[in-house]
Amino acid sequence: MSKINSLVTGGAGFIGSHVARHCLALGHNVIVLDDLSGGFEDHIPAGAVFVKGSVTDHQLISELFAKYKFDYVYHLAAYAAEGLSHFIRRFNYETNLIGSINLINEAVKAEVKCFVFTSSIAVYGPGQLPMTEDMTPIPEDPYGVSKYAVELDLKAAHHMFGLNYVIFRPHNVYGENQNIGDKYRNVIGIFMNQIMQGKPMTIFGDGEQTRAFSYIDDVAIPIANCVNNPKTYNEVFNIGADKPYTINELVGVVCKHLNAQPNTKYLQARKEVVHAYSDHAKAHRIFGTNGAVSLDEGIKKMASWAKVVGARKSQEFNNVEIRKNMPEGW
Amino acid sequence: MSKINSLVTGGAGFIGSHVARHCLALGHNVIVLDDLSGGFEDHIPAGAVFVKGSVTDHQLISELFAKYKFDYVYHLAAYAAEGLSHFIRRFNYETNLIGSINLINEAVKAEVKCFVFTSSIAVYGPGQLPMTEDMTPIPEDPYGVSKYAVELDLKAAHHMFGLNYVIFRPHNVYGENQNIGDKYRNVIGIFMNQIMQGKPMTIFGDGEQTRAFSYIDDVAIPIANCVNNPKTYNEVFNIGADKPYTINELVGVVCKHLNAQPNTKYLQARKEVVHAYSDHAKAHRIFGTNGAVSLDEGIKKMASWAKVVGARKSQEFNNVEIRKNMPEGW
Ligand SMILES: NC(=O)c1ccc[n+]([C@@H]2O[C@H](COP(=O)([O-])OP(=O)(O)OC[C@H]3O[C@@H](n4cnc5c(N)ncnc54)[C@H](O)[C@@H]3O)[C@@H](O)[C@H]2O)c1
Ligand SMILES: NC(=O)c1ccc[n+]([C@@H]2O[C@H](COP(=O)([O-])OP(=O)(O)OC[C@H]3O[C@@H](n4cnc5c(N)ncnc54)[C@H](O)[C@@H]3O)[C@@H](O)[C@H]2O)c1
Repeated sequence: MSKINSLVTGGAGFIGSHVARHCLALGHNVIVLDDLSGGFEDHIPAGAVFVKGSVTDHQLISELFAKYKFDYVYHLAAYAAEGLSHFIRRFNYETNLIGSINLINEAVKAEVKCFVFTSSIAVYGPGQLPMTEDMTPIPEDPYGVSKYAVELDLKAAHHMFGLNYVIFRPHNVYGENQNIGDKYRNVIGIFMNQIMQGKPMTIFGDGEQTRAFSYIDDVAIPIANCVNNPKTYNEVFNIGADKPYTINELVGVVCKHLNAQPNTKYLQARKEVVHAYSDHAKAHRIFGTNGAVSLDEGIKKMASWAKVVGARKSQEFNNVEIRKNMPEGW
Repeated sequence: MSKINSLVTGGAGFIGSHVARHCLALGHNVIVLDDLSGGFEDHIPAGAVFVKGSVTDHQLISELFAKYKFDYVYHLAAYAAEGLSHFIRRFNYETNLIGSINLINEAVKAEVKCFVFTSSIAVYGPGQLPMTEDMTPIPEDPYGVSKYAVELDLKAAHHMFGLNYVIFRPHNVYGENQNIGDKYRNVIGIFMNQIMQGKPMTIFGDGEQTRAFSYIDDVAIPIANCVNNPKTYNEVFNIGADKPYTINELVGVVCKHLNAQPNTKYLQARKEVVHAYSDHAKAHRIFGTNGAVSLDEGIKKMASWAKVVGARKSQEFNNVEIRKNMPEGW
């Protein structure tokens, strides 16, 4: 029997590098497509084929599909800085929507067996809590809109062409291989980087906003495995940790594992959802996930890794389209 | 007092050419931006400045905003062949979404007073009937998804930057200046063109699907006028005729006014919504529209125009991305 070919876009990135590793463990032949705009070549697991390029390059995508005849597509490549998306609208939609559409087009033509897509809880918008998969999303920022548009497009492609999909809506994932130099997203990585640089931890607003932080294994393993479970096909899953923490609580846990004194600086609140947590009963039912890694345990693992790799220089996003109303410090 | 500057994208097209004319009548200085992919230069009303170019060209858009300091943007440019959008996904999102985002970016920066957008009832998807503005849309084809994404993006831009918008969701508009050579959309134009070419009128399915056909004046006049009524700002309006007709009934009315014998050819049904009609109570309340032009009256006007301009050669859409499952005859 010939090997299963899987395309993992964004496989040099945080979640993608873990998904690629788990796919290799499942015996897949893994091709990583990543433009390294936010990922790192040395995060790509040994054994995967690396193609440097962008999902926005439809010519390249078409060549890859012709060459590898993919069985599965795991589409994780994205520019995921939700808060920044207001200020980089065109870039957001080009990367997150058009890039995805290029892959959907080819997946339809190549009749891939399943298209796995990492959406986000950003699609829900400020609805009721907890967010459940049976709610109709109403995203309220360009990042969430682009993710939701891809979800709807996948449903349309399933309806018209029979393309199978699995949509995951992860949230606040953290762990090894995260780009802690990204100052626009991932508060845990930002805090670790700030601590290691001897800078104060910056908090938007009063720090009483809550998020349920999800350790990488609890997210990447179900994503990789779903293709082997047809019950997941053409379904949407919230995925990640259940327990919300305030940003102020988080400060304590991060400081503990990096042996640092809490040193915080409060900035003006951003326009963002104050509380966000989602229901994972559906994922628990289908994937049998239950022993979610605790925040303390997960942060401990990530901190040991961060101590080894050290601080990363923060990079500016250079092509801001609108400067008006940008949050302090960006 | 200096004159009001209005940008009308798609102003060489069907609805846009009428909107441009009504804006001139309101005393605006009108700049039409159109790439003539679906419009005609001789439909642009005298007195408007014509710029040939694409909304996907963000450099050009930016130059136009710098030059004209627009007060209002009427964004009508689009590729609106809903049924074809499954097969031209990338083109659909590039034109209908990215093109719109380029304009929203500049409208935010230039602080325009109002951004008027023609969405579509395609956003609703196959929901309850009649469609009302308080329903949460769930579009089910790429055209509807692109329109809904623009609506959501406008709301986000309003929330973050204070950009005012008015969103119209017209449906099945017909009348003078329609491109009757477009074989992918506008059944009335298609029928007229087929009759004038001595061909049978082609009908997908049994012809018992219903649509409420809307005469152009009932749509273009409120669109042009809305900027003068702040009650319309940051609102969404269904707009168009109330009374649904079957395609089979339509055949009779069109034949009557073109003095033709009904000659029909039934093709396999497409995947499309069978019944579609929307509620216009909100538009009636705000715009005082009530005397909607009847189908008989509207078709009569359009037929007199069509007889003068004659049949148009149908053009193939040349860059189809997916050929699989395309409807017969396309
Ligand atoms: N991390 C989270 O908490 C979270 C939550 C919800 C959803 N997601 C989604 O999960 C996916 C992975 O996120 P992540 O946290 O691992 O981010 P990440 O930035 O670490 O990974 C994204 C990868 O995509 C690559 N990439 C970006 N643009 C590309 C392009 N045009 N072409 C090819 N590659 C490109 C980057 O170089 C990077 O390696 C994204 O789709 C993101 O939206 C993440
Ligand atoms: N006609 C209807 O029944 C209907 C219903 C709902 C919504 N709409 C919307 O109303 C608007 C006008 O539709 P219409 O029926 O007049 O169609 P149309 O094709 O006659 O007009 C569209 C115009 O946009 C121009 N255009 C297309 N792509 C462009 C680009 N990239 N850059 C610049 N110009 C471009 C075309 O050349 C054309 O002149 C569209 O946004 C459409 O989606 C129409």
